Amino acid sequence: MIYFDNASTTSVHPEVARVYGHLVSDLYGNPDSLHALGRRSGRLLEQARERIAASIGVQPQEILFTSGGSEANSLAVAGYALANRKRGRHIITTQIEHPAVLQTMRHLEEEGFRVTYLPVDGKGCVRLEELERAVTGETILVSIMHTNNEVGTLQPVEKAGALIKAMNPRILFHVDAVQGYGKFRIHPKKMKIDLLSASGHKIHGPKGSGFLYADEKVKIRPVMFGGGQQNGLRSGTENVPAIAGLAKAVEMVYGNLDEEVKKMYSLKKAFVEGVRKIDNVVVNGHPDEEGAPHVVSVSIKGVRSEVLLHALEDKEIYVSAGSACAARKPQPSDTLKAMGISGELLGSTIRFSFSVFTTMEEINYTLQTMYDIIPMLRKYTRR
Amino acid sequence: MIYFDNASTTSVHPEVARVYGHLVSDLYGNPDSLHALGRRSGRLLEQARERIAASIGVQPQEILFTSGGSEANSLAVAGYALANRKRGRHIITTQIEHPAVLQTMRHLEEEGFRVTYLPVDGKGCVRLEELERAVTGETILVSIMHTNNEVGTLQPVEKAGALIKAMNPRILFHVDAVQGYGKFRIHPKKMKIDLLSASGHKIHGPKGSGFLYADEKVKIRPVMFGGGQQNGLRSGTENVPAIAGLAKAVEMVYGNLDEEVKKMYSLKKAFVEGVRKIDNVVVNGHPDEEGAPHVVSVSIKGVRSEVLLHALEDKEIYVSAGSACAARKPQPSDTLKAMGISGELLGSTIRFSFSVFTTMEEINYTLQTMYDIIPMLRKYTRR
Repeated sequence: MIYFDNASTTSVHPEVARVYGHLVSDLYGNPDSLHALGRRSGRLLEQARERIAASIGVQPQEILFTSGGSEANSLAVAGYALANRKRGRHIITTQIEHPAVLQTMRHLEEEGFRVTYLPVDGKGCVRLEELERAVTGETILVSIMHTNNEVGTLQPVEKAGALIKAMNPRILFHVDAVQGYGKFRIHPKKMKIDLLSASGHKIHGPKGSGFLYADEKVKIRPVMFGGGQQNGLRSGTENVPAIAGLAKAVEMVYGNLDEEVKKMYSLKKAFVEGVRKIDNVVVNGHPDEEGAPHVVSVSIKGVRSEVLLHALEDKEIYVSAGSACAARKPQPSDTLKAMGISGELLGSTIRFSFSVFTTMEEINYTLQTMYDIIPMLRKYTRR
Repeated sequence: MIYFDNASTTSVHPEVARVYGHLVSDLYGNPDSLHALGRRSGRLLEQARERIAASIGVQPQEILFTSGGSEANSLAVAGYALANRKRGRHIITTQIEHPAVLQTMRHLEEEGFRVTYLPVDGKGCVRLEELERAVTGETILVSIMHTNNEVGTLQPVEKAGALIKAMNPRILFHVDAVQGYGKFRIHPKKMKIDLLSASGHKIHGPKGSGFLYADEKVKIRPVMFGGGQQNGLRSGTENVPAIAGLAKAVEMVYGNLDEEVKKMYSLKKAFVEGVRKIDNVVVNGHPDEEGAPHVVSVSIKGVRSEVLLHALEDKEIYVSAGSACAARKPQPSDTLKAMGISGELLGSTIRFSFSVFTTMEEINYTLQTMYDIIPMLRKYTRR
């Protein structure tokens, strides 16, 4: 099996599985319990918080554990906007955010907020001058993703942060880093990011884990209520085994980041060069190191996405048509449309996404398979 | 180690850990992915949904997976109230709910709802006549827990359901069954329950798992937004390993329920009889089969809760002072206060909570330990 759907979800690192398994069988205490088993869980929880905080250079108390990226995004965007509606009712985001942000924005529109959705260029990048024009005296929040999940385009978050704060330091900046965290070193304090979302299962951590960084000066409102865990901002018994697993995944990925990312870029380069040998193929976004190391979006004229997906699947190569997050509702990708990709190519786009476990052999086998099957698929399509 | 804090959290059943471990290492696909690995995850997800739905006699599509009981309670109460505020703005609950319900009610009060908190009798039971008196033309929701987490009192949910629907079938009935599910057979359709919350980690399932049953006719609003998973009511990549683990825990607990519950009642009976041999001890709630099989709340005059908790801990017996959910904020329990428990006993209350793994030897050892240490602790306290 060749698994090229890592932007959708990743395998759990064996070290992460080991940590999780150990905690599940031996250390199942509730970190809120006062007895020794509870206190030991509590210490593991705080160690995990410290490790994760250190990975982005923030304070441990600024990390809120969530059930994943969608919860982190919902909590950041809705939690901040609803707690601060008296300060203003205008929010800025982009047309190519993940549904966790876009659908939260729709919800906020129903609650009386006005939302500006910034367009993107042909590579999927927002333009800073459009961001600048969109800011009004009513703007309280800007939300821009770090790395796009469908095409791997990197947004100019550092420049955006500087621009926003130069215009009005009271406007908050949220970054959905679900695809960027674990691939890049992200430092919210340097990059003027006030809220940052990340997910465990995109970086070989457990599903059901993720976090929100929230600058300690930021006031947010919980979306989930209960026993007052995590300063009341995210109640519910902390899932210590998953959180400790997440911390282990963070340790693994950031322990050797530069080398792993370099390796992924060389895989990406080889794949892009190989794919371009096929006629009438477009590599979307940035085919090089300007884009993310792990995502390659390819439009293959004359072959419908689902057809290629299933033909590759027959060879045990697993890829995605668009993003899995919306894959069950097969409809043209809003991200690709926002990038100006035309009707025919829109429905012929496949996402290949790699991980630290991807090998050059897998790249070569996949390319060879594509060389073999695409001419055939095109022939059938023409008939 | 004797773990008598099962109402706080339970150990993970080895069979559950096995299922989880297998899925984590071999079947990590995103159930929303279209390829074979994703589809296999999707099938496991649906099998889990079917098994859990069957355990309470409802349709699979009426089960929403959540990150736990607090999320299920928040989603049920806030999700229903906010989606139906035009129908009315009055909600009824009790004074002894879990914070996941009580804090959601506080939030709804800020959003303009009026909430009636029903009092309870000395055993911790709501009186149906008070419920009847509280209902108004504006009432849209009643939320009553199945089993109290601190004293194990069972609420008259079936009678309450019948009463509510007889008064006005359009009033919805939510039951927080986090402590009752897995100890009792609960049938929402027969018991006129429209929304029911449950948690995995209270029944030897994984932390980070839980579900909300929502009758398919009920309109609720999500609290978490994203890719539109679970009919858009609970977005986020489904945590299939934890969900399959939850389904396995449900299979284990309901496969042998009557026998296990009978065994727990016999342990409870022995413990209550033994504890009553100590002078000046009050067993709160129902000391018999009128109450839950797994919770015994004991007030021990002249010994402060924390003192006894740590003295027992020295003997490797782990119990809880009040409930772990609020244990980090040591303050008098609202539940005990609502039951009319007086000043001195309020701060001298310990919760012992059992599981299917509890043995009579553990009960006897704990009783003997209490016989040994309580007179000594009382002597020190008097000085």
